[in-house]
Amino acid sequence: MKSIVVIDGGTRPDGNTATLTDQALIGLSVEKILLRDHTINPIIDMRHHSDGFQDREDDYNTIIDQILAYDILIFSTPIYWYSMSGLMKNFVDRWSQSLRDSNYPDFKAKMAAKKAYVIAVGGDNPHVKGLPMIQQFQHIVDFMGIDFGGYILGVGNKPGDILQDKKALFAATQLKNELI
Amino acid sequence: MKSIVVIDGGTRPDGNTATLTDQALIGLSVEKILLRDHTINPIIDMRHHSDGFQDREDDYNTIIDQILAYDILIFSTPIYWYSMSGLMKNFVDRWSQSLRDSNYPDFKAKMAAKKAYVIAVGGDNPHVKGLPMIQQFQHIVDFMGIDFGGYILGVGNKPGDILQDKKALFAATQLKNELI
Amino acid sequence: MKSIVVIDGGTRPDGNTATLTDQALIGLSVEKILLRDHTINPIIDMRHHSDGFQDREDDYNTIIDQILAYDILIFSTPIYWYSMSGLMKNFVDRWSQSLRDSNYPDFKAKMAAKKAYVIAVGGDNPHVKGLPMIQQFQHIVDFMGIDFGGYILGVGNKPGDILQDKKALFAATQLKNELI
Amino acid sequence: MKSIVVIDGGTRPDGNTATLTDQALIGLSVEKILLRDHTINPIIDMRHHSDGFQDREDDYNTIIDQILAYDILIFSTPIYWYSMSGLMKNFVDRWSQSLRDSNYPDFKAKMAAKKAYVIAVGGDNPHVKGLPMIQQFQHIVDFMGIDFGGYILGVGNKPGDILQDKKALFAATQLKNELI
Repeated sequence: MKSIVVIDGGTRPDGNTATLTDQALIGLSVEKILLRDHTINPIIDMRHHSDGFQDREDDYNTIIDQILAYDILIFSTPIYWYSMSGLMKNFVDRWSQSLRDSNYPDFKAKMAAKKAYVIAVGGDNPHVKGLPMIQQFQHIVDFMGIDFGGYILGVGNKPGDILQDKKALFAATQLKNELI
Repeated sequence: MKSIVVIDGGTRPDGNTATLTDQALIGLSVEKILLRDHTINPIIDMRHHSDGFQDREDDYNTIIDQILAYDILIFSTPIYWYSMSGLMKNFVDRWSQSLRDSNYPDFKAKMAAKKAYVIAVGGDNPHVKGLPMIQQFQHIVDFMGIDFGGYILGVGNKPGDILQDKKALFAATQLKNELI
Repeated sequence: MKSIVVIDGGTRPDGNTATLTDQALIGLSVEKILLRDHTINPIIDMRHHSDGFQDREDDYNTIIDQILAYDILIFSTPIYWYSMSGLMKNFVDRWSQSLRDSNYPDFKAKMAAKKAYVIAVGGDNPHVKGLPMIQQFQHIVDFMGIDFGGYILGVGNKPGDILQDKKALFAATQLKNELI
Repeated sequence: MKSIVVIDGGTRPDGNTATLTDQALIGLSVEKILLRDHTINPIIDMRHHSDGFQDREDDYNTIIDQILAYDILIFSTPIYWYSMSGLMKNFVDRWSQSLRDSNYPDFKAKMAAKKAYVIAVGGDNPHVKGLPMIQQFQHIVDFMGIDFGGYILGVGNKPGDILQDKKALFAATQLKNELI
């Protein structure tokens, strides 16, 4: 069985996205990384600076160390303003640093060996207005060479709303069957 | 003349996006807010919590106070991973808090009176892979009722690259003529 | 119960899209219009010509007469080259003519009273590469004032493939429950 | 110098798209194929039929023979309903037939050696609502292995409108410089 890590970009406990993600992982052994419990500073672009990137003295590298050990990445994010949460965006932005970090010479190669899924819930017509975010995730995984396994979009606003979204729940079950 | 504020989501001085933005504003009196010089914490979604949103004790409200005074918002962001920088995304995410902040009862109405432009530079085929970001900005301004004045996409990676992008520079000049 | 018409843009009998559409309509009384059984000429744009649009002497108006009688429009199209079939595109293009046709003074108002769904099957990653088509349908229905009820994307290439797409079949069942 | 062919999907003489395309080709020797002057029947999908595709007895193959001789393809189409014209879509749909036509064993290889540009003019916010069409063209050329040289979007409705779109005209001039 493939090992699975959830990268959770939500900002509150028991959010709809987390609930939907849990549905896809019932009975599976998974690691969950709650980005909100860590400090991840925004990237400072030093690509073109003679000194290169500087240590941002936060939890980013610890999280990278964790996720590199897994086969499957599940990006689980609420849809905020038609895209992934800023919390998750800052995490992804920092990959530009890892790509040039001599402590992670195989970062891209290791990431390229993984498969990724996206699970996202939003309240404002996510099946249409969330599509640009899906296209962005496709571009992100394409750049890294990660295999994109697919995505689940759900509809929800208030806590528990997602439990009314039968199509999203069914898709979560299908994903579970795929991951087992 | 309309008053103009630039919301700069770049993370290094003299970035290509800032250079292109400056081209559009030559000779104009504008305020620039460099998000990187401020602390903007990620939103913590408390919409459904009885206590509501809590003060995040950062510079966010100060920036909101500033931008509310202007007629024209220019979102100037490098394209990181096919979207706005995480720095800027965290700023936009926090609007959800202002929309429910009793200290800002007119937040949406005031924003809805503004006009917005997007200026963004990226290195990986921004004229195609940056399009989802433009669609997201359209959704964002639509939600707020802001008039979307348009966008300029430029191509650049290394410092100064943007000065070779004649179409972007021409578009910047056209925007300047529109803003005068 | 609302009356339902399927506008079928497929070009072969028993295509995957038709099969999926049938799943969503089991037990329902629906009208089906197979565009391939009619002649629909490409529009000739005469908007700016003093004589206006000319009769194209084909089956287009007969089809318009038919669909105007229904409450629900189901656009059922295979995904050809990442978009609706040319057969269906020519049909939609002609709406520009109906919008200016004095024989159809209420065309837009009548269309605006309807609700539309899209069902589409493609073989090349439709859940990502089919998204621009969905965005276009959203723009199309928005322009007309039609309510967009949603869409189902399915995966299929060879005849019968769609019967393996459990998520699409489930979504079809959900749509059926919504339409009853 | 590379040889250039324009595939014109417009439906009226002197349309804005044709005007803009002409601006990009001033002084260059180009072939123009006006799709509206030819009969191109919709594809009938016979991929899975034992007899395979049948001759559609129209002008399609003649046009293919023409364009195969050129290095650069310029797809010049008005934006109808947020996408290419049905006339042009029927032409592209038929490529599925050529890909399986024993008379064109090298169809894909020959197309893959070409470079393509898109020039499109629309009246309803083409710089945002025309973006899905651009993404579709990207998918189309990617599938064929054609190099996508870029696109120009212009704003126009009434005849001559495009002459007011300075950015589009500038981009056309830039394209001309690239093509010389």
